[in-house]
Amino acid sequence: MKFPPVKWEKDQLFLLDQRLLPHKIYYKRCRNHLQVADAIKKMVVRGAPLLGTTVAYTFALALREKKFKSTNGILKKIKVVKGRLEDSRPTAKNLFYAIERMYNYVSKLAHGNHSIDSIVKLVLKEAKKIEQETEAQDMAIAAYGEKILSPGSVIMTICNAGGFATGGIGTALGIIKQAHKKKGVKKVFVNETRPYLQGARLTMLELISWGIDCELITDNMAGYFMSKEKIDAVIVGADRIALNGDVANKIGTYSLAILAKHHNIPFYVAAPISTIDPGIRSGNDIPIEERSPEEVRKFGGRYITLRDAKCRHPSFDVTPAKFISGIITDRGIVFKPYMRSIPKILGQ
Amino acid sequence: MKFPPVKWEKDQLFLLDQRLLPHKIYYKRCRNHLQVADAIKKMVVRGAPLLGTTVAYTFALALREKKFKSTNGILKKIKVVKGRLEDSRPTAKNLFYAIERMYNYVSKLAHGNHSIDSIVKLVLKEAKKIEQETEAQDMAIAAYGEKILSPGSVIMTICNAGGFATGGIGTALGIIKQAHKKKGVKKVFVNETRPYLQGARLTMLELISWGIDCELITDNMAGYFMSKEKIDAVIVGADRIALNGDVANKIGTYSLAILAKHHNIPFYVAAPISTIDPGIRSGNDIPIEERSPEEVRKFGGRYITLRDAKCRHPSFDVTPAKFISGIITDRGIVFKPYMRSIPKILGQ
Repeated sequence: MKFPPVKWEKDQLFLLDQRLLPHKIYYKRCRNHLQVADAIKKMVVRGAPLLGTTVAYTFALALREKKFKSTNGILKKIKVVKGRLEDSRPTAKNLFYAIERMYNYVSKLAHGNHSIDSIVKLVLKEAKKIEQETEAQDMAIAAYGEKILSPGSVIMTICNAGGFATGGIGTALGIIKQAHKKKGVKKVFVNETRPYLQGARLTMLELISWGIDCELITDNMAGYFMSKEKIDAVIVGADRIALNGDVANKIGTYSLAILAKHHNIPFYVAAPISTIDPGIRSGNDIPIEERSPEEVRKFGGRYITLRDAKCRHPSFDVTPAKFISGIITDRGIVFKPYMRSIPKILGQ
Repeated sequence: MKFPPVKWEKDQLFLLDQRLLPHKIYYKRCRNHLQVADAIKKMVVRGAPLLGTTVAYTFALALREKKFKSTNGILKKIKVVKGRLEDSRPTAKNLFYAIERMYNYVSKLAHGNHSIDSIVKLVLKEAKKIEQETEAQDMAIAAYGEKILSPGSVIMTICNAGGFATGGIGTALGIIKQAHKKKGVKKVFVNETRPYLQGARLTMLELISWGIDCELITDNMAGYFMSKEKIDAVIVGADRIALNGDVANKIGTYSLAILAKHHNIPFYVAAPISTIDPGIRSGNDIPIEERSPEEVRKFGGRYITLRDAKCRHPSFDVTPAKFISGIITDRGIVFKPYMRSIPKILGQ
């Protein structure tokens, strides 16, 4: 990527501030784990798989915050880091997956026969490995996913499940990119995705840069265009997937799934295996982040309504498995009944 | 109303610029029919019933643009005015209803035994009559409509079908206001209604000023809240109603109707009889305005996406009659089959 959303340089973590795209390229420099946790909270960086990569690097960063005298110090530190990162955003599974993995990895090293210096080095190596795995997962998802699309397909998507969400070629957008390369995609309808406008700002930027024809619509136009134009598939990303196939994703995904069903349009979810939460049986148990109402009340720093207007801001919703035609993972596509196919693909 | 959306003062027409609400109260002064047509196009003034009142006054305004020497001059003038106003916006039936009515009225006067002075006076009187009729229609709609709501109802709406859309107490919002007065409304969910944010800017303003509890949501949250909270009814306005009960209204209404059906929530339309187009048999024949993509591309003067991003901007959609639980008019509520009930209420 020309502007990778996360960069490790000179022992610091640089996060492309996605809130400023597409107008401004600005990297926020993070020197410690608190700055990263804050950046995650404030959505400088977002996208479930990318959050995984980001928190992985945060462990490497944390071990550089000071000179440790003992592995005990390291263990204490990563406990604090783990807690902070877990408190940053609650919905994306990949974030917790990467926290868990890095925590356990450092823990194991610290309990083993490693020098402090080698631990610090190995942790960075592991973070890079997670980043590379995520990129490889995107490629695998794209390879499986492009098969569902016929030449000249028209696709609808919401939010940004692209390179800005993963660091690779993206999940839903990766499929579209690959399909376009192999057989040509006719057009992509992009829901602008209020309140953060990830569709308008990020997805349009990626699709245009790839030379794929795309049209931006406001979220309330989705049903209209489903009824007026031939749309072959809706493809979206995911923040967490329950064992029964229920999918938490950006607010608006649920409405889109119902509209797709009504118009007989296949509705696909694209996500790496690490998005599946083996500890959660159904979507009811997925924690949904309610963000500040101020983010709905204001737009670009200006109020769009009365200053004292009550606003609601659930950041995600859960789409029941029954609306989902297939879940495209890096290990293949799973279909209904998900209760059977998901544990199987997890190797359970 | 404290700030009526249309004011006739000193032989001029003052239009409250609804694009600036709720932040700024500014009346655009119109001295001739061209200024009004332009203001309608640019959405200084909007709302189907209010457009009716506005164009009615425009005929009164046009007859003051110069001293007419003959009734022939008047006839020529109103023909031009009619054409201009018809070209302003294509969807709202009430606009055409009022143009037709005023045109025929002036025509009749001009062909009769009236002095030019008395014609000028009578035309203003007729415009005022249309304004008063619209206000009375709102009251009648509210009286019929409040009966469908139980005490403590939770209602969802889109766009602004309130006083800013009619000059009275509003259609959908008038019902809510009346129901609140008589038995208490628990809460109203207001869809912000992109791209013009009439929900955020106008509906929130009216509901808050009436002391009715309301929560602003982005349009893509509608399905989520329908699934999470007990919503008793969706009530929306209308821009044009076909004889078969299909309803053109603000973009997003169609999606909302499908979502309401999926969640078993009654979906009502509120509009005066003049919104029904006896010349249109089904929604397929209702002209849908496509506005400038720039209105989607920009927000408050700033680009929300790339400058060369393709955007779509249908301003309305058509909700098929089958999704509509009832149409609340000033002559009563009509139910399915609309093919029978609508002609009956029209007295056909």
